[in-house]
Amino acid sequence: MKQAGLSVFQDTAANLIGRRTGRNRRLTPIWIGSHTDTVKNGGRFDGTIGVIAGIEIARVLKDNHLILEHTLEIIDYTAEEPTEFEISTVGSKALAGNLSDDMLALKDGGGRILGETIREYGGDSDTLLQAARNKGSVKICLELHIEQGPVLETAGNILGAVSGIVGIRHFLVKVKGRADHAGTTPMTQRLDALAGAAEMILALEKISSRRPDPASCVGTVGRITVSPNAANIIPSSAELNFEIRTLDGQLLETLSSSFTLACRDIAARRDLTLELATLSPTDPVFVDPGIVNLIKKACTLATDHCQEIASGAGHDINQLACFAPVGMIFVPSRKGRSHCPEEYTDPRSIAIGTEALLNTVLEINKRTPA
Amino acid sequence: MKQAGLSVFQDTAANLIGRRTGRNRRLTPIWIGSHTDTVKNGGRFDGTIGVIAGIEIARVLKDNHLILEHTLEIIDYTAEEPTEFEISTVGSKALAGNLSDDMLALKDGGGRILGETIREYGGDSDTLLQAARNKGSVKICLELHIEQGPVLETAGNILGAVSGIVGIRHFLVKVKGRADHAGTTPMTQRLDALAGAAEMILALEKISSRRPDPASCVGTVGRITVSPNAANIIPSSAELNFEIRTLDGQLLETLSSSFTLACRDIAARRDLTLELATLSPTDPVFVDPGIVNLIKKACTLATDHCQEIASGAGHDINQLACFAPVGMIFVPSRKGRSHCPEEYTDPRSIAIGTEALLNTVLEINKRTPA
Repeated sequence: MKQAGLSVFQDTAANLIGRRTGRNRRLTPIWIGSHTDTVKNGGRFDGTIGVIAGIEIARVLKDNHLILEHTLEIIDYTAEEPTEFEISTVGSKALAGNLSDDMLALKDGGGRILGETIREYGGDSDTLLQAARNKGSVKICLELHIEQGPVLETAGNILGAVSGIVGIRHFLVKVKGRADHAGTTPMTQRLDALAGAAEMILALEKISSRRPDPASCVGTVGRITVSPNAANIIPSSAELNFEIRTLDGQLLETLSSSFTLACRDIAARRDLTLELATLSPTDPVFVDPGIVNLIKKACTLATDHCQEIASGAGHDINQLACFAPVGMIFVPSRKGRSHCPEEYTDPRSIAIGTEALLNTVLEINKRTPA
Repeated sequence: MKQAGLSVFQDTAANLIGRRTGRNRRLTPIWIGSHTDTVKNGGRFDGTIGVIAGIEIARVLKDNHLILEHTLEIIDYTAEEPTEFEISTVGSKALAGNLSDDMLALKDGGGRILGETIREYGGDSDTLLQAARNKGSVKICLELHIEQGPVLETAGNILGAVSGIVGIRHFLVKVKGRADHAGTTPMTQRLDALAGAAEMILALEKISSRRPDPASCVGTVGRITVSPNAANIIPSSAELNFEIRTLDGQLLETLSSSFTLACRDIAARRDLTLELATLSPTDPVFVDPGIVNLIKKACTLATDHCQEIASGAGHDINQLACFAPVGMIFVPSRKGRSHCPEEYTDPRSIAIGTEALLNTVLEINKRTPA
């Protein structure tokens, strides 16, 4: 950051900020940010390329003696990935004023407290509220990120102008039947929790798959625990995590209702007991259509191969959208892989993405009256 | 056994035998036997009532000064239930000559060896072969046992004349897909091992359920292990234990073929990898129809409420059928429960079953030319 001519400091949430002061001090700053932390055994692209792209843009502006109207701030947000303290997007939560005292008191497996850990990394949890930004205090928050999915690669595109981040509905479902001898209990007298759960798994798959655009909605069962889980005993209970994700808030509600109805039908027909708990929902975050169009234009200047795309994964801009307009550009992930050592994005795509991000900054700057 | 006038001894497999010598020493003995061991946390009826019934019959013969043509032997077979050494029906395996040296060398979790443990319980593993019986050396092996299922209770019957013990086909199925991000991978680009497994679970249920007699065939998935089993990751693999049981050997083959075909279809359609291993099969054991009829008649003398029934669980007679004719009578299990503390059978049913067993012995004895 220093080599790119930025003045570097940390806020009280330990977010690392490199500032290039603009011509007009009364204008709000443009933010470009991402994160440099990673999941365990993850890749080298998720997050990091977004910070590097920001620094590269600052370097280009410096080398070309370009002073923007707006101040430009390149931000490395603290701890975007799920942490040992169980919460994610720690730095951007603080910026949005969403990092509560309860969260700061969270402990990791070794007994470390989140608030103290933020201090160790250069923040100050006692004055954390100072990190929170008021609505309207930032011109726009921009981010370049890897897609973490196969949509761009499949379509043969290099850039994606993100239209929003999907909302998520989580369901914790417990199906209870009765453990019986697998040999002596006729099919008609069974209360088989696993067979009921299997129907629910396929119901979610069907409900999530019958959309005209296959990328518009996904439904997943990632976890199942069966009891007693013995080869010759009919399962008495199954516990499953279901989730539905889509950018369309109305669709999210409709599909959630369809799914819970399907579960109730299956349980009733099979005489099974159903416990269905809805875990804390995540609402969709929309990028303003004007900004999506501006970013699409900026992308088109860098490559013909771009498209609009919804993000299926959460990002810091979920938090940043609480106080500022947001914009995001995706570059392809090879084979859609992410959060694993195989995670890879062609450096040429990252260069094109960085160019599009610069184009976006220049266009926003140009539209600001001098 | 001694109080019932029996002379008591153990064979080299530690089977406990109480003998009432018959009138004609050249005739082969009639056996009545079951077991007094139990599964952990099991009930008080499974096995035990069959030995008690045998002793009661001996007492009745003694008290009424009845000497049969045949010698009567009441047997408490060694370790019928699954043991710490992983094998079951230890005593009857020895009688059938099916207890191999490899089995005798099996160790439990504490390092004890099966052969030595048999010695501790009164047997002698060095002369174990002496316990094995030649074909034709026993007139018939009879057993009274709890049903361990709900068929008799549902039908309102008190006794079941067992027509045979179902055969079992075990399948260990591994379904392999690909772990992907649950949010960023479109439904059309997933290789979801759990969704494929769910289809296979329902395929087995359907295949096993469409028989005209619902008690004639059962199919069960008792165990499933999913990896990585995390809420937001598409499952990359699922491992399942499937089993099919029916008394009809031909049907067993047909259903096994239908099931493996269904699994292959599902895996192929979903582009999943399938590994399907067939574990050691158990063939059906049939009771000779003449004996079933004889037992049915003996049951009818004791109660109007009897029926023919297949056993969905294995028993010592699976082994004994290797060297002698077999016959079995079931009494009802309350709510079909077994191998649990709730296991219960009305003492009046046990008394009626014992009467039917005595009737069977007397009828066999009567048919023997003096």
